[in-house]
Amino acid sequence: MAKLVRIALDAMGGDHGPSVVVPGAELALQRRDDISFLFFGDSKLIAPLLASRPQLAARSTVHHTDVAVRMDDKPSQALRSGRRHSSMWLTLDAVRKGEADVAISAGNTGALMAMAKFCLRTMPNIERPAIAAIWPNVRGQSIVLDVGATIGADARQLVDLAIMGSAMARIMFRLERPSVGLLNIGVEEIKGLDDIKTAGRMLREANLPSLSYHGFVEGDDLGRGTVDVVVTEGFSGNIALKTAEGTAKQIAQYLREAMSHGLWSKIGYFFARRAFDKLRVKMDPRNSNGGVFLGLDGVVIKSHGGADPHGYAGAIESGYDMVRYELLGKIKESLALAHATQVGASQVSVAATPL
Amino acid sequence: MAKLVRIALDAMGGDHGPSVVVPGAELALQRRDDISFLFFGDSKLIAPLLASRPQLAARSTVHHTDVAVRMDDKPSQALRSGRRHSSMWLTLDAVRKGEADVAISAGNTGALMAMAKFCLRTMPNIERPAIAAIWPNVRGQSIVLDVGATIGADARQLVDLAIMGSAMARIMFRLERPSVGLLNIGVEEIKGLDDIKTAGRMLREANLPSLSYHGFVEGDDLGRGTVDVVVTEGFSGNIALKTAEGTAKQIAQYLREAMSHGLWSKIGYFFARRAFDKLRVKMDPRNSNGGVFLGLDGVVIKSHGGADPHGYAGAIESGYDMVRYELLGKIKESLALAHATQVGASQVSVAATPL
Repeated sequence: MAKLVRIALDAMGGDHGPSVVVPGAELALQRRDDISFLFFGDSKLIAPLLASRPQLAARSTVHHTDVAVRMDDKPSQALRSGRRHSSMWLTLDAVRKGEADVAISAGNTGALMAMAKFCLRTMPNIERPAIAAIWPNVRGQSIVLDVGATIGADARQLVDLAIMGSAMARIMFRLERPSVGLLNIGVEEIKGLDDIKTAGRMLREANLPSLSYHGFVEGDDLGRGTVDVVVTEGFSGNIALKTAEGTAKQIAQYLREAMSHGLWSKIGYFFARRAFDKLRVKMDPRNSNGGVFLGLDGVVIKSHGGADPHGYAGAIESGYDMVRYELLGKIKESLALAHATQVGASQVSVAATPL
Repeated sequence: MAKLVRIALDAMGGDHGPSVVVPGAELALQRRDDISFLFFGDSKLIAPLLASRPQLAARSTVHHTDVAVRMDDKPSQALRSGRRHSSMWLTLDAVRKGEADVAISAGNTGALMAMAKFCLRTMPNIERPAIAAIWPNVRGQSIVLDVGATIGADARQLVDLAIMGSAMARIMFRLERPSVGLLNIGVEEIKGLDDIKTAGRMLREANLPSLSYHGFVEGDDLGRGTVDVVVTEGFSGNIALKTAEGTAKQIAQYLREAMSHGLWSKIGYFFARRAFDKLRVKMDPRNSNGGVFLGLDGVVIKSHGGADPHGYAGAIESGYDMVRYELLGKIKESLALAHATQVGASQVSVAATPL
């Protein structure tokens, strides 16, 4: 058997803590058996859940701490009260110390990012980390980044986002050369900020083997699945993400109202209820799980705070894949190539690393 | 009868031209009878459509031109080939010359905005115009601006957007003091760009009688209807708008697929098809019609290019209301008050102008 992938879990993170994290780990282990787990959190809560799961327990160690970052802690609060001692910090620190290969938390995003920056630092040549979301679309899924780690980005930072996002897409979607679009707005001639234009030119000229630059995309290309990776700075990315989630909820409510008005609709709902159940699953953001923090010197996965064990297992599997298929190595390699191209080397031709 | 509201129509604008514009005008006239129309476009196409509608014809004049801006013309192209002669230009020019009270076009947005800026100029004290969209939400509707006229906005420009949007909301939703939120992103402490923070402080301190400042809102507040007016600069506003439209289409496709798989779903669809029809209407962006151009020295309404006569009539009615209830006057009054407050006058207390 290959070396185990060692996964550090913040057992106290998320709306449900260990009662989701432990069963989630069990599900993940059933699907990929070369995993070991490090649980960080209140052992009084974790131990009984492991006791009833001997197979999981055999692959797990529990590291007790009383301190937990709350879902509503501000990042600075979390850092002040939770640094060094909280389950979130210890989960990240296990990666820093080389005791784990990936850190997973369903805790609050701002605190997790602040701690991750502090604990793991950014990769060489990367100034700022990003959060990459997995975005469902009519053709399947795409990766959208940055959805809120950092406000604003210059051309070079947008190119870095493209490189990091496409490394993630190569792993997640098993693609050799994912297509990448820069998010922009419609009217041809005011088309966008100079930084976006420059980034587009840089990506086209670099002609990297690890990604295929598509050009500009617009907000409606997200749902359409026009490209595998959509790149934008964190302000507009976060607004796009939240707007899409809000629109999905809004339409779900319209649908509920439509189906509960009048006898015929109710009868229709009765017959089609399985289809509605499937649709509900498809529209639930908790099910496209595993936001990935990119640009850090370590792999960190943010699970949705409201995820159920199934959703949490999805986040674990994302983390597993990012380790198994060497996310950090892929990013570093692409970055080095892009930077080499930029300093004036003639057209570099290196085959894309196969998955 | 009150003075007629004189409405200039770009008969050639939109995907369907006069075949939608003329019947749309007829529908609007049936609902508000104090309107007169000026049609600009190809009289060979317009005249026969009017001939079969004597009531509308009695209130209409036709102004012939052969030149029409195409839906795919770039703004600069449109200005070059369509200035002075195109139906779009002549429609706007009728407002400039005081021959019409409002200009309505379903033509391409970029061209219409470029021509409107050129022809009508901006209001005193407004540097840049904005496009305000009417956004359906679970509580009804809200106004979101800017959805793409201008990229970027400083604090003062955001305050101007708040003032213009709330003037529109007072008219459109018959509110005395609409609530206004500034679109921002979630994490408490990186919460946003300095300009947004400053704009928030300015709006809170100004405590204007024409709007009630709510605070920051996020992308998912759009569908939720948290506030009556959502203010953001044109880049993120356009991305939010397109993302929401794309998400609605995406879910509509999921729904179609769900309802066409399996016998029970098909039976369910059969019974509930009226509910689905209503839902489809609700989700169709062509039905929340009448984007309003704000900040220009004249009232301009952009109808959706794909609107049907019913949707086009909605745009006409929006334009009618903006004239009848004095959009420009309301904006000017609020602006003057805000600027007075800003230059250091003590707390100004002026009752909101009743509708």
